[in-house]
Amino acid sequence: MSSPIDQLKERLYEVNALNAASALMDWDQQCYMPRGAAEARAEQGAVLSKMAHEIFVSDETQAILEKAGSEVDPASEEGALVRVVKRDMDQRTKLPVELVTELSRHGAIGHEVWVEARAESDYSKFQPILEKTVDLTRQVADCLGYTDHPYDPVTDQFEEGATKKYWEDMFDTIRQPLVDLVAEIKASPDQPDDSFLTGSFQEADQRAFSMRLLEAIGFDLTRGRLDTAPHPFCTNFSVNDVRLTTRFKDYLPSAIFGTLHEAGHGMYEQNSPQGWDRTPLAGGVSLGWHESQSRTWENLIGRSKAFWQFFYADLQKTFPGLANKDLETFYRAVNKSEPSLIRVEADEVTYNLHIMVRFEMETGMLDGSIPVKDVPAVWNQKYEEYLGITPPDDARGCLQDVHWSGGLLGYFPTYSMGNILSYQVWNAMAQDLGDLHEMMSAGNFQPILDWLVAKVYSQGNRHLPQDLIRQVCGTGLDATPYITAIREKYREIYRLN
Amino acid sequence: MSSPIDQLKERLYEVNALNAASALMDWDQQCYMPRGAAEARAEQGAVLSKMAHEIFVSDETQAILEKAGSEVDPASEEGALVRVVKRDMDQRTKLPVELVTELSRHGAIGHEVWVEARAESDYSKFQPILEKTVDLTRQVADCLGYTDHPYDPVTDQFEEGATKKYWEDMFDTIRQPLVDLVAEIKASPDQPDDSFLTGSFQEADQRAFSMRLLEAIGFDLTRGRLDTAPHPFCTNFSVNDVRLTTRFKDYLPSAIFGTLHEAGHGMYEQNSPQGWDRTPLAGGVSLGWHESQSRTWENLIGRSKAFWQFFYADLQKTFPGLANKDLETFYRAVNKSEPSLIRVEADEVTYNLHIMVRFEMETGMLDGSIPVKDVPAVWNQKYEEYLGITPPDDARGCLQDVHWSGGLLGYFPTYSMGNILSYQVWNAMAQDLGDLHEMMSAGNFQPILDWLVAKVYSQGNRHLPQDLIRQVCGTGLDATPYITAIREKYREIYRLN
Repeated sequence: MSSPIDQLKERLYEVNALNAASALMDWDQQCYMPRGAAEARAEQGAVLSKMAHEIFVSDETQAILEKAGSEVDPASEEGALVRVVKRDMDQRTKLPVELVTELSRHGAIGHEVWVEARAESDYSKFQPILEKTVDLTRQVADCLGYTDHPYDPVTDQFEEGATKKYWEDMFDTIRQPLVDLVAEIKASPDQPDDSFLTGSFQEADQRAFSMRLLEAIGFDLTRGRLDTAPHPFCTNFSVNDVRLTTRFKDYLPSAIFGTLHEAGHGMYEQNSPQGWDRTPLAGGVSLGWHESQSRTWENLIGRSKAFWQFFYADLQKTFPGLANKDLETFYRAVNKSEPSLIRVEADEVTYNLHIMVRFEMETGMLDGSIPVKDVPAVWNQKYEEYLGITPPDDARGCLQDVHWSGGLLGYFPTYSMGNILSYQVWNAMAQDLGDLHEMMSAGNFQPILDWLVAKVYSQGNRHLPQDLIRQVCGTGLDATPYITAIREKYREIYRLN
Repeated sequence: MSSPIDQLKERLYEVNALNAASALMDWDQQCYMPRGAAEARAEQGAVLSKMAHEIFVSDETQAILEKAGSEVDPASEEGALVRVVKRDMDQRTKLPVELVTELSRHGAIGHEVWVEARAESDYSKFQPILEKTVDLTRQVADCLGYTDHPYDPVTDQFEEGATKKYWEDMFDTIRQPLVDLVAEIKASPDQPDDSFLTGSFQEADQRAFSMRLLEAIGFDLTRGRLDTAPHPFCTNFSVNDVRLTTRFKDYLPSAIFGTLHEAGHGMYEQNSPQGWDRTPLAGGVSLGWHESQSRTWENLIGRSKAFWQFFYADLQKTFPGLANKDLETFYRAVNKSEPSLIRVEADEVTYNLHIMVRFEMETGMLDGSIPVKDVPAVWNQKYEEYLGITPPDDARGCLQDVHWSGGLLGYFPTYSMGNILSYQVWNAMAQDLGDLHEMMSAGNFQPILDWLVAKVYSQGNRHLPQDLIRQVCGTGLDATPYITAIREKYREIYRLN
């Protein structure tokens, strides 16, 4: 008879096989599946999800987990595995099947309605969906339990340990400095021109350049791939099978920074310990941590001048239309910042202001201080306050994001945490490694990847997210490095000194 | 409480979801998967197969099947479903788990040894594997049960109702006529030249032309795809998700006829009734029937003069190197026939002789009349007798096929059945539709596809294979149409009259 921990692992391997199959089905659906296959795929996917859930929450698995928990050292790897599984079990068993089914049904219907409402820019169509999202989310909060605010257990699902208070402290540090910086940038007489980044860039050339980027930064193409999909994403079916997607558009930076962003997620996944593969210990520790790594490779590395000191000659050779644009012009163009209406197109400075709007609205909707019927008005007023612009319609306002249609309240702040944390980790790395810009301008990314692997990626899901921040950075989440760095970077770009 | 037949369908949908996921994993592995992912993929695949098997043979499923069987009309669709499931249940429950596991392990090891033995052309390495294949196959035969010959239940797994005697009758009709025709062809002073079919044909052009073929013949690309893989195959995850693969080589016919062959399999799958999707009633009725349809589209249609009367101008435009080759030259080149050593490269005339060798050897090995140690000698002697050539080594002789390494005895004759049956079905169609060549030369494939859908594809797996032959052709399996047609075709090509 095998030990309880081995029995637990066997169970987890079963659940993993089903989840990996579902993930492959999703990847295939977004990259290759013929459109006529959607219905059968949905049916088959539902069967696999149900089986995975039933095996996971079964009495047998719960009994094995209990036994394993009483035998392992909590400080050991196996102790960490038990902790992670217990948390997942706890969350899944607290939510009644009816509520989970209702959420899933609501997500499917809500998505359809949202697509229509956004297309017609008609908030009145979407309002009942959002009301139900809020109602169901309150039920989730009640089931999971909380002391201070219903937002706490809801956001904790995505970022373990986070609360409304935690995010408020984070946003309080960045709100005013960002609003001020946006205003400074807006007032600069020296605005970069990025019009030359839009044009006809051959897809094959974009793809070839993206592949060279991946190889150069250390994404392992023997254990991963790059495909194209309408919305870029990263998924994986094991530590050794990590799939990135990007898209090739008229706007050249789309493929380049999309690829680097997803590669950041991907390298995090690829570098979990092999022995943890197919268990919940493998993979990134939280959404905020994951985003910190996609942003590191996209922004701190990919949007740095040093990076392009190394790559710009290759880019110019690949796209001869760039021949008459010098490095400085290109660097300023890919870092252009201006208040815009759409979050997913926002730059490093304004992005977190978009998130802040959503966070403030989510907490308000959940505790009732912002009635759902007032969402468009409040949204527009906050955009005016933080970004100095007012959406001309709800399609470009409160209807722009998919999240609320599917019931995903509590998710947005992890994007900002990622941006902020990426700078903290970067500073810690610079203390250990010295001049990172010198390395990047020489195309030497290996020490950077090695450091991230040692400190973060190889830790997988072993530690609590906030413990890992302290372990890597020596402090808790702190927005100071982010604010300092982007102030410096953008003052130089906009020649504000 | 739902009816037993509905409960049965629910079970079958569960098994289907797991099998579809496994099939998608296989497709992905052959088309896209990074090589480093193999180990995790194998582990995950094993979990899904085990689950599918356990759900299928579970006491609950058996009880539901029993109940459903007692309630449905055997002549109804649901009766057919119960019959098909019962047959599968019967075969799976008759084989003890240990034997199935042993076969699976033997297949994995056997494949490795075969790859090595073939590379080194060393039969002594492969002999112990083949001995074990024969031994395990005898055990399978004993478990499944038989009256006349151990080959009977073994081949029945692949072609329901077939026996050694059934195949012998089939081969007896074609042996002498084929041997004679091969000799006639060999003696012709007017041999076609096909050297111009090998050269540098751009992959993108081959792909574009293949896609135009698929569209023209009626393969539904909204419910299917074409990808590339080292070995062409067709798989599907539902009636509405049929995946073909082909390969683009220096030898131009490889992609063209590979695509048409797989499209034949694919259109058979695509045209099962929608209501049968995700149940075992959907899909081709047997291996022989399936091969009859791939061969119909590859050979009777794709290698006809009429087909190229319609498509040759497009092909010449796509590959300007063909400009100085006229239609007749091209038609004769793609129908060149000559005794060769390798089955998978064989033409329409010689192909079945390759199969006959294998069939005679399989029955002999199984009943002990051909000792496994004598396989190379017997093989070479039969090639000399039927094809007039002797393999210079075992790599190009008895070590060429993958089948025997994995335990697949009893499978080969279904290839010949496909070739033979395709001509019977073709004659039946010509009686209904009139001049098929006129249709094809006008690019009018719709009536042909419609007829095949009505008579064959829409029947899915509802009837016994041999009943379907009688239903469609009015007789049992009969090689006369095949022999008559290829004699006529090749006498014209080789100018033997």
